[in-house]
Amino acid sequence: MTHSTPPTRATLGEFGLISRITAGVFTPANVITGIGDDAAVTQLTPGMQLLTSTDMLLEDVHFRRTWQDPYTLGRKSLAVSISDIAAMGGIPRWALLSIAIPSDLTLDFVDDFMRGFLTMASENNVALIGGDTCSSRSGLTISVTIMGEQLPERILRRSGAHPDDDIWVTGSLGDAALGLSLAEADDLDSPHPAGSQESEAEGRDFFISRLLNPEPRVSVALALSENGLATAMIDISDGVLADFGHIAEQSTVGGCIQLDDLPLSDAFRAHAATLPAIPYQLALSGGEDYELCFTARCSNREKIKECVKKCGIEATRIGIVASSPGVTAINSDGSLFNLQKAGFNHFGNNQ
Amino acid sequence: MTHSTPPTRATLGEFGLISRITAGVFTPANVITGIGDDAAVTQLTPGMQLLTSTDMLLEDVHFRRTWQDPYTLGRKSLAVSISDIAAMGGIPRWALLSIAIPSDLTLDFVDDFMRGFLTMASENNVALIGGDTCSSRSGLTISVTIMGEQLPERILRRSGAHPDDDIWVTGSLGDAALGLSLAEADDLDSPHPAGSQESEAEGRDFFISRLLNPEPRVSVALALSENGLATAMIDISDGVLADFGHIAEQSTVGGCIQLDDLPLSDAFRAHAATLPAIPYQLALSGGEDYELCFTARCSNREKIKECVKKCGIEATRIGIVASSPGVTAINSDGSLFNLQKAGFNHFGNNQ
Repeated sequence: MTHSTPPTRATLGEFGLISRITAGVFTPANVITGIGDDAAVTQLTPGMQLLTSTDMLLEDVHFRRTWQDPYTLGRKSLAVSISDIAAMGGIPRWALLSIAIPSDLTLDFVDDFMRGFLTMASENNVALIGGDTCSSRSGLTISVTIMGEQLPERILRRSGAHPDDDIWVTGSLGDAALGLSLAEADDLDSPHPAGSQESEAEGRDFFISRLLNPEPRVSVALALSENGLATAMIDISDGVLADFGHIAEQSTVGGCIQLDDLPLSDAFRAHAATLPAIPYQLALSGGEDYELCFTARCSNREKIKECVKKCGIEATRIGIVASSPGVTAINSDGSLFNLQKAGFNHFGNNQ
Repeated sequence: MTHSTPPTRATLGEFGLISRITAGVFTPANVITGIGDDAAVTQLTPGMQLLTSTDMLLEDVHFRRTWQDPYTLGRKSLAVSISDIAAMGGIPRWALLSIAIPSDLTLDFVDDFMRGFLTMASENNVALIGGDTCSSRSGLTISVTIMGEQLPERILRRSGAHPDDDIWVTGSLGDAALGLSLAEADDLDSPHPAGSQESEAEGRDFFISRLLNPEPRVSVALALSENGLATAMIDISDGVLADFGHIAEQSTVGGCIQLDDLPLSDAFRAHAATLPAIPYQLALSGGEDYELCFTARCSNREKIKECVKKCGIEATRIGIVASSPGVTAINSDGSLFNLQKAGFNHFGNNQ
């Protein structure tokens, strides 16, 4: 049995690394010139407008290599950007990826990261069309720009909510925040530690997966946009309270959220009793859900349920848009919920 | 005289900082929704294709805070991206800016950086439409995505060169590389040190300015594109030898560069005698020129000279495209120039 010397980043060089990174890239018809020129050339669908968003992910600020395997890190790096296009009711199309790579990062890590990134891209018909690679003298830094498109009349903004609209959210809330609190408490060495009891480990895996491997809600967002069912939309990255707050602010309205109506997963309810924090606090203000919060006319309730069901997703009405400013959360007895804090701090050091 | 407490990044918070950063942003008609939603919405000119490029700049890899004042850092962060759109013959339109800010960075630094960034944007009719801000646990990290547009038939790629085309470059070569070698030799504490002799200081200022404050060659690139005068184009960021090499590779041609014809600035020629390195080496392989290298039919020589002159830029023929692969550089006596290395390493640590 013979072994050839495996390549390293040093033996590959910059252009070898780029070739390796871009090996699995597909080129749809709307990509006229992909990776390899000064700029990529793409063709929008006639009549559509361009949607653009960018996110930067820093090691030990937005992710930890001790928690997050490279494959899910690659997936999540693109997922959070795709989620922004979804939140506009847009069709995700093209992505740019820049990575600053520290010297201790192995080629295997880069390969697994790219496998995750390109799998997420492929699942959402997104083409990688460019980027930048360089050496980092500190941690791994990832910058993703996503582009999408949509007909002008179908684009959903934060500013479209009206008084008396329903407030809806997809999926369940707080799971990712609970995953973060579990991961922080244990400061896990690996995403799947051995030795914990089976049922507890299952719950943990679910929460950690919701934190590390979110799925952007593209299909339901597009269905709502194409059927004209939502008046405003945002993705929930900082907790529904803060993110609905952006809708309220930009629509110059307010809102009232019923705590009893917040969609909590069965696993979340089972763990709720053991939590040091108030469960509703995590569901309201925990970050990284990457679900959608949208508003819609009350008259469209049945259509929305049907539309969302076809996408295999649940959506829940959690409150009502108010004409006066301010967002409140109401306990089951009708009293005001005491909000300790409204937003989410990534590892507590966001500015 | 009274002093109010000046704001700090901590007292501003994330959204206060974003408001401050985006205070000077203009919104042209092609920006439908700018900063403040999940994604920006922009409108391409009908018939045009989208051009996209991204660059990441890391402290102590691509720039040093001890050398580069925040204003020129802001300018250069956008200039290098605009240069990519220019190199495609494109019209720069929109930019996204992500910055990871270390805790020791002052608000004044951020303000000056943004003033530089937005001045460069304004000079090139580029609108800032989005971005991301976060805290860095290490150095300052900047990620810029630029978008432009152009009619399909006017886009200039690396792949369009033909045998017997002329090879041209704009401006002068090697000044930035000389600036880098001067800055590295002295490891300057400030971009404009006092105490050096006046004429020497003038030369130094010129070279340092060429390194730290490059001007993207948008007008000449557009003039060449709109008049159909260039067959292939690239911007020179890694030295003309390496960058023409990309044209040669993607056009499946080769080329021969006459060293005597390389455009060297008067300041460069004056300093050449004092250089430890061979002057041509810096002009051929030094990085960060951000001039354009393009190829064109020999029959268009006069038209090109006229077109370039109208833009207030000089352009120089430096060689001929060859049908066989490989790029060579020829001394004045017709002998082959010995190339020590073909590319540029930012501070010698590029991968």
